[in-house]
Amino acid sequence: MDSGRVTLTPAQRIAWLRLVRTDNIGPVTFRQLLNRFGSAEAAIEALPGLSRKAGRPMNVISQSRAEDEIAGAARFGARLVAQGEAEYPQHLNHISGAPPLVTIASGADLDWQKCVGVVGARNASSAGVKLTRLLAGDLGAGGYTIVSGLARGIDSAAHRAGLATGTIAVLAGGFDRIYPEENIPLAHDILDSGGALLTEMPLGWEPRAKDFPRRNRLVSGLSLGVVVVEAAKRSGSLITARLALEQDRDVFAVPGSPLDPRAEGGNLLIQQGAKLVTNAQDIMDSLESADPARRALFDPEWRPDTTMAADATEPSQTEREAVLNALSTTPVEVDELIAQLGLSPHAMQILLLELDLAGAIEWSSGQLVALRHR
Amino acid sequence: MDSGRVTLTPAQRIAWLRLVRTDNIGPVTFRQLLNRFGSAEAAIEALPGLSRKAGRPMNVISQSRAEDEIAGAARFGARLVAQGEAEYPQHLNHISGAPPLVTIASGADLDWQKCVGVVGARNASSAGVKLTRLLAGDLGAGGYTIVSGLARGIDSAAHRAGLATGTIAVLAGGFDRIYPEENIPLAHDILDSGGALLTEMPLGWEPRAKDFPRRNRLVSGLSLGVVVVEAAKRSGSLITARLALEQDRDVFAVPGSPLDPRAEGGNLLIQQGAKLVTNAQDIMDSLESADPARRALFDPEWRPDTTMAADATEPSQTEREAVLNALSTTPVEVDELIAQLGLSPHAMQILLLELDLAGAIEWSSGQLVALRHR
Repeated sequence: MDSGRVTLTPAQRIAWLRLVRTDNIGPVTFRQLLNRFGSAEAAIEALPGLSRKAGRPMNVISQSRAEDEIAGAARFGARLVAQGEAEYPQHLNHISGAPPLVTIASGADLDWQKCVGVVGARNASSAGVKLTRLLAGDLGAGGYTIVSGLARGIDSAAHRAGLATGTIAVLAGGFDRIYPEENIPLAHDILDSGGALLTEMPLGWEPRAKDFPRRNRLVSGLSLGVVVVEAAKRSGSLITARLALEQDRDVFAVPGSPLDPRAEGGNLLIQQGAKLVTNAQDIMDSLESADPARRALFDPEWRPDTTMAADATEPSQTEREAVLNALSTTPVEVDELIAQLGLSPHAMQILLLELDLAGAIEWSSGQLVALRHR
Repeated sequence: MDSGRVTLTPAQRIAWLRLVRTDNIGPVTFRQLLNRFGSAEAAIEALPGLSRKAGRPMNVISQSRAEDEIAGAARFGARLVAQGEAEYPQHLNHISGAPPLVTIASGADLDWQKCVGVVGARNASSAGVKLTRLLAGDLGAGGYTIVSGLARGIDSAAHRAGLATGTIAVLAGGFDRIYPEENIPLAHDILDSGGALLTEMPLGWEPRAKDFPRRNRLVSGLSLGVVVVEAAKRSGSLITARLALEQDRDVFAVPGSPLDPRAEGGNLLIQQGAKLVTNAQDIMDSLESADPARRALFDPEWRPDTTMAADATEPSQTEREAVLNALSTTPVEVDELIAQLGLSPHAMQILLLELDLAGAIEWSSGQLVALRHR
């Protein structure tokens, strides 16, 4: 992946899509394959050999299925955008596990840099909906694009308040699988208003439970900060807040009475360090005096460094076994493994790539690796 | 004032009371007089000379009026307790402008060390009253004495919840001037339950507006921390919170919906750094992991250092005029004045004492001095 701005050729885009849609190839593995083989096309050619070595068949989707997905997206007015292309949302470059490809419909005139996530309970109270309307409306008037997850309750109220000024809905499934169905009209309103729908999932993908937290990392990843309006103690909104913190985004929470169970999540976040906000000005003041750690988010010239020094040496079978022995179901840092085993970073990278393709390991936060529970 | 524990003789107590009740003698001046003349009796004898020098008559109350006040207090089951005596609330020693004498009724078996202030709006909502009952009830069950100001609303709810386990009401006026009158039965309930009433004001004193913030410094001063339950943006509860901060006490606030005006004060306090609390456990956890700055509050052996080196030199008229010239209505630190004018700390002390007795200056936070507005 080039760290400057590129435009994929149609053939490259199809190859990227085929590789991205292959089982066991997540964002981290995708990047490793591209770094190792130089292009998606070359990685696809090398996969059969790699998967034999990993002891597990890798089924790359066919050229025609990839072409069908691109054509299907076009019917929704959507296009597949690759990391590195001009239209790829800049802020996503800063998150670990950034999706190599996202499908985006509409949103050409949106300000993708000045985004705030507004999330909260599906079973929102009428006070919560009113507050969301006030907050998101004023944030929109202040020039901020409203990002949310198109769920019932707070998410829907946030999108509606953002229709006039710009809003982005991040889906947990495919464009043809809007969830909940009752929000299909809202999704159309978003598109009609010049707002955007975005997903990393393929057409036809029915969202499963685990796709929602995965989606939430994109809600926070697109945003400078996330506001939690009403949230129970164990809720998706708190997951979004945690992801936002991991991504060095600001987390804001609206307080509420201790007698109101829908305030528990927000109050808890404030106790844990989130900023208490009661109006949009609080949020804008805070974002505009941004933490130095987040300055890169405001730098349009910033590019992720995803290159890696080439190295022709293949790891040996002994090294392969040493890595497998060293791993457990407790996540460890790759640097720690490298130090312990005395392997070169490049050899470690190749071995972990093979294990990843074999479905034997899993990544957390992009840097920690563990054996997958069987 | 001795820094160990003493018991005043009846004659000493009368002399202290006469000096404390003299116009223009506040806690700071009282301490300066005692330091300069060695005893309240000697200070009373010296006052006519001092007040001539200050160009203003000083009217010390008569021996019989002081005796009447002590007898009057006794009819309410109350006694006048001097700073330094065993019964004087230890925590008050740590505040600036600690009252030399307080009148206390009942409360002999209370835990005066483990106190929490619970304050809030007079026009409390029913949710606020319920929350106060829960918080104060659980704090009481956890061994904390509930301190408040006997006002309507949150204060009353806090005292009532503390009746079973111990509560202290700090009055802004005299024992015979309970305000509001509707709380006279509650005051009796507090006494009957073994709780305490405390005031620094004389019998017969009708509380004026400015006596309430003055009283609030004792609510916070008696406490390890103060909880604000419901408070408007400009309210006495926020004054108590500010005083608590100045006194290095913890400040806790209960959050509420931004749509509820009675939550504005609490939310604002949290934005400014107060700890968000939703239940008594939050408060107790925080108090029990107390900040090192407040450790002295937990040390029963701690005594204030109020002694001063004796020095026989009288300040000259030139020095007197230099100090008066240097002062303005903007408060300055005494140390700053001393450095600027090149006076000895002792001479400065005497000159400020004279100006104080003349009603020409006023103190803030015990260390800042300014010309009084005329």
